Amino acid sequence: MMSPVIFIFSLLVFSCHAAVQDFCVGDLTAPESPAGYSCKKPAMVTVADFVYSGLGVAGNTSNIIKAAVTPAFAAQFPGVNGLGISLARLDLAAGGVVPFHTHPGGSEVLLVVQGSITAGFVSTANKVYLKTLKTGDIMVFPQGLLHFQVNAGGTIAKAYASFGSASPGLQIVDYALFANDLPTPLVAATTFLDIAQIKKLKGVLGGTN
Amino acid sequence: MMSPVIFIFSLLVFSCHAAVQDFCVGDLTAPESPAGYSCKKPAMVTVADFVYSGLGVAGNTSNIIKAAVTPAFAAQFPGVNGLGISLARLDLAAGGVVPFHTHPGGSEVLLVVQGSITAGFVSTANKVYLKTLKTGDIMVFPQGLLHFQVNAGGTIAKAYASFGSASPGLQIVDYALFANDLPTPLVAATTFLDIAQIKKLKGVLGGTN
Amino acid sequence: MMSPVIFIFSLLVFSCHAAVQDFCVGDLTAPESPAGYSCKKPAMVTVADFVYSGLGVAGNTSNIIKAAVTPAFAAQFPGVNGLGISLARLDLAAGGVVPFHTHPGGSEVLLVVQGSITAGFVSTANKVYLKTLKTGDIMVFPQGLLHFQVNAGGTIAKAYASFGSASPGLQIVDYALFANDLPTPLVAATTFLDIAQIKKLKGVLGGTN
Amino acid sequence: MMSPVIFIFSLLVFSCHAAVQDFCVGDLTAPESPAGYSCKKPAMVTVADFVYSGLGVAGNTSNIIKAAVTPAFAAQFPGVNGLGISLARLDLAAGGVVPFHTHPGGSEVLLVVQGSITAGFVSTANKVYLKTLKTGDIMVFPQGLLHFQVNAGGTIAKAYASFGSASPGLQIVDYALFANDLPTPLVAATTFLDIAQIKKLKGVLGGTN
Amino acid sequence: MMSPVIFIFSLLVFSCHAAVQDFCVGDLTAPESPAGYSCKKPAMVTVADFVYSGLGVAGNTSNIIKAAVTPAFAAQFPGVNGLGISLARLDLAAGGVVPFHTHPGGSEVLLVVQGSITAGFVSTANKVYLKTLKTGDIMVFPQGLLHFQVNAGGTIAKAYASFGSASPGLQIVDYALFANDLPTPLVAATTFLDIAQIKKLKGVLGGTN
Amino acid sequence: MMSPVIFIFSLLVFSCHAAVQDFCVGDLTAPESPAGYSCKKPAMVTVADFVYSGLGVAGNTSNIIKAAVTPAFAAQFPGVNGLGISLARLDLAAGGVVPFHTHPGGSEVLLVVQGSITAGFVSTANKVYLKTLKTGDIMVFPQGLLHFQVNAGGTIAKAYASFGSASPGLQIVDYALFANDLPTPLVAATTFLDIAQIKKLKGVLGGTN
Repeated sequence: MMSPVIFIFSLLVFSCHAAVQDFCVGDLTAPESPAGYSCKKPAMVTVADFVYSGLGVAGNTSNIIKAAVTPAFAAQFPGVNGLGISLARLDLAAGGVVPFHTHPGGSEVLLVVQGSITAGFVSTANKVYLKTLKTGDIMVFPQGLLHFQVNAGGTIAKAYASFGSASPGLQIVDYALFANDLPTPLVAATTFLDIAQIKKLKGVLGGTN
Repeated sequence: MMSPVIFIFSLLVFSCHAAVQDFCVGDLTAPESPAGYSCKKPAMVTVADFVYSGLGVAGNTSNIIKAAVTPAFAAQFPGVNGLGISLARLDLAAGGVVPFHTHPGGSEVLLVVQGSITAGFVSTANKVYLKTLKTGDIMVFPQGLLHFQVNAGGTIAKAYASFGSASPGLQIVDYALFANDLPTPLVAATTFLDIAQIKKLKGVLGGTN
Repeated sequence: MMSPVIFIFSLLVFSCHAAVQDFCVGDLTAPESPAGYSCKKPAMVTVADFVYSGLGVAGNTSNIIKAAVTPAFAAQFPGVNGLGISLARLDLAAGGVVPFHTHPGGSEVLLVVQGSITAGFVSTANKVYLKTLKTGDIMVFPQGLLHFQVNAGGTIAKAYASFGSASPGLQIVDYALFANDLPTPLVAATTFLDIAQIKKLKGVLGGTN
Repeated sequence: MMSPVIFIFSLLVFSCHAAVQDFCVGDLTAPESPAGYSCKKPAMVTVADFVYSGLGVAGNTSNIIKAAVTPAFAAQFPGVNGLGISLARLDLAAGGVVPFHTHPGGSEVLLVVQGSITAGFVSTANKVYLKTLKTGDIMVFPQGLLHFQVNAGGTIAKAYASFGSASPGLQIVDYALFANDLPTPLVAATTFLDIAQIKKLKGVLGGTN
Repeated sequence: MMSPVIFIFSLLVFSCHAAVQDFCVGDLTAPESPAGYSCKKPAMVTVADFVYSGLGVAGNTSNIIKAAVTPAFAAQFPGVNGLGISLARLDLAAGGVVPFHTHPGGSEVLLVVQGSITAGFVSTANKVYLKTLKTGDIMVFPQGLLHFQVNAGGTIAKAYASFGSASPGLQIVDYALFANDLPTPLVAATTFLDIAQIKKLKGVLGGTN
Repeated sequence: MMSPVIFIFSLLVFSCHAAVQDFCVGDLTAPESPAGYSCKKPAMVTVADFVYSGLGVAGNTSNIIKAAVTPAFAAQFPGVNGLGISLARLDLAAGGVVPFHTHPGGSEVLLVVQGSITAGFVSTANKVYLKTLKTGDIMVFPQGLLHFQVNAGGTIAKAYASFGSASPGLQIVDYALFANDLPTPLVAATTFLDIAQIKKLKGVLGGTN
């Protein structure tokens, strides 16, 4: 005879067969949909899928911007797939800068955990919202708006960015303009920048044409 | 010569080739996405996919809670996949109880169709909203909040729950705490319950550790 | 000295000051937004806001369609405001019909609790999905598609409709075409119906022009 | 030694590996989800996926309604998949009509680019919103509501419809009622139309039963 | 005695009292919510709220970019409020350019109705998708990504942009960088541009500091 | 004569009059909608609305759980209103515990910045996902599921929680069950706990009845 406890339990398990109701750990090898990656089969999911240690290590800031952005988006941390949230770590050496950029897919809250950072965003009315943040401060950057972060002190600064999307994206204006094969005259026409300026930055960032 | 009627008709059929625009009957054997199951191919869909008779039979209440919850979520009734709605049937024998639980994925409206049920939910401000419902009454339980239902009469009570999600989920607090291998000291630390109480309920519900 | 219990508690209450996070009982006298009614002030909300008894009484079916639809949408049952779910009761006398209609704002699941109902919907590919439902059966009608219900037996039939929206709307084709002042020639041009047919139904349903 | 420029760049590319964050060009041969078609692999996507020339050609209006609707929905123009937007072209010969119809999945804005069009929609309160639009005018039709367009001049009229969905759907009332096998008595019962009227239109539109 | 027809009708009107279910014409004088403007009272709404003629007139292109963008967003055309769709008209004189910009709130489909336009967008992987569109072509620009349009012919070009949002926003990079009081050294640090270049463009666009 | 620069600029400003398109800083004194607080008037918004320093101070852990949760939800930090994101700070003294709780409105990512924390969540299939996190680790807790955090070391632990909602809510099981006036017999019936256990915890947490 089937135990009464098991009976009610089996019903509940039955209703839980849909992994989508609890979580949808991304299977990066399966087809994607507009809502994100396909879900890993529930039976294959372990706690390791929900934990990520990649933000525990400082990014390498020995580069032109003296900064590193280390993402924990769905592509790096598939546990957040479908859950509308992700993180990134920001390391800024002295003089470090995260140049003007946008996140097309979600808003951001920046949390400064070390040092001091001057951050700002520009509204579509072209108004600047600018602030120097000290350790412990948080600042929000609304979805899709241009913003930047600059190390405001003489030492290392560290921050974490939280996003209201598992795949917020990151588009840096300089890279979009100067790090590809968009013809220089077209860049000039659509930015008002001087040809010499464009060529100079294409040289730095690896752009052609 | 092609008939003019057929011409406009073919355009419409063309635009309708996307099953997603009308419905997306769940294919439980295909990959899931964060938005739900993959869609059964439109040509394979029949009216049977949109009708479900599983709620027409009383659940077995010969169990510890003298109650049965019979879901018609997307996992049981794939016709609701992607449509943001589902149902469940609730049978309560005399003394029957659906213990404190939540639906992580959607709000619920309970409709009492037989007998009388005392139902309540608790807000995040810890305020209790408690009411004894008579046949014909409906009560709403906002998404994710703890709630319960208890048979308020001496005879069978029957109700239907409607959810604003095709996969609302069901998490019963007692099962989450006592029906798995979460170590007893950890349960004690995170619930303030006495060790003896935890061991007693683990015994009833099949928990270990 | 403030008690430690109160301290953690006060933080939680603080974070809960936003009624929107738990529920948003509709204030029908305040401005509406695209997301629904404004929220009643949390301090004014009682359990009565979450319970509705209006579906406990049969609608009057002594009318032309021998049927009555009694809604418990946000406008009648403000407790569901913002929660993406609502209900309606359907009473069908012998011969009763709910004519072809749509719900522009949400999908529907129909639950037959008494008698037998023939129900159907038409896809955008103009395919008919038709079924006679017996007591206990449920059927889903995808959002926005034309559908109908007809009493399939010789006695009273009763059903409840659940919607994946707090304000799904209800547009009956006959009333949209014949119960207003849309000029008869325009109705004819946009429906292919004969003028006499239109005038006849305008007469029945109170249309003019 | 790895170049500093490459370093920051590689991080960004890494975070961009998820095509879902930028776009999800529909792969019409892969499984669909409730959110739309599966995404074409990013490496296979070219600018051709984002451009469509099918609306540049007038639809054939030599048909019963003297009109043609040419859709650029996700099924025809996979570049809009997942982006919540699509277009259609409307050609109306003199006397042309787009009969009463709905778009179950999205609202529409109509833009008249040639000639003059009388358009109207009916609210769920059965109120008619009717207007003759001249070239350059736009009119919005809220999601799911019955509406129509009629050529208001003696010459060709042309318009473009924009939709707030990649797959808004199109359900024409006449086709839903008269262009399939829904039994005539059932059509009569659910529309109040005369049997003769129904048979006449079934004859025109190819319906049976 | 109340007529049976009126009875069913009154129920429907009752359920329609919520304007939100059909539409929510924006009241620009009332409080806004995150979902858009408050709704104009239904009784005050007329067909004029759903029609807009402002796109019927060419924008003035006698300016620095030889172009004009005329929006019909919710702020100009309150009828689209809450409906997730809006339009804009684009006029380009010979040599006209819409400089690099984003729409933070929605994707865009551009429809060329006169002349020829070279358009392009850049993905977050910094890949360029570039195409010269002829009259009748449409092109989609995914939400939030940098894109531009340039007149590709020697004569006037005209296009309409459709957006999957009632308030998509418009952020032009040049205006965000050079048309406000963001200090020149900060612009330099966050764009890599030369000080002279920044000062030159601030001069043209009215920026200070 | 009007300057050409000003002309294009004024158009852009015009389209930006809708604060909703960029941000919607919450006005805590105005009516709420289901989508969040009403928006502060754009002209009143300053950078101070987007910055919050309240998480820079350790919460007081001299309480029964030796822990403090300091939220920066929309109610405390109105700048995130409508943006689908918020933060909280978690301080755990040695032996500190955040008891079993849920966030009904959003998923959470926990970031450990000091010390070590054992965290776990339980799925609706009652499976436990348990992990001891070290400084720098992140862990995701899917929306609405029961979870907890316990200080795993002998010293202070500190963490930040990010949420995919501006008002995720916080419901602690113990407070919901024992810190209000829900009658003890009803608590017993709906939790299987012994009466003595319930009375003991009601005593600790301030419950009555």
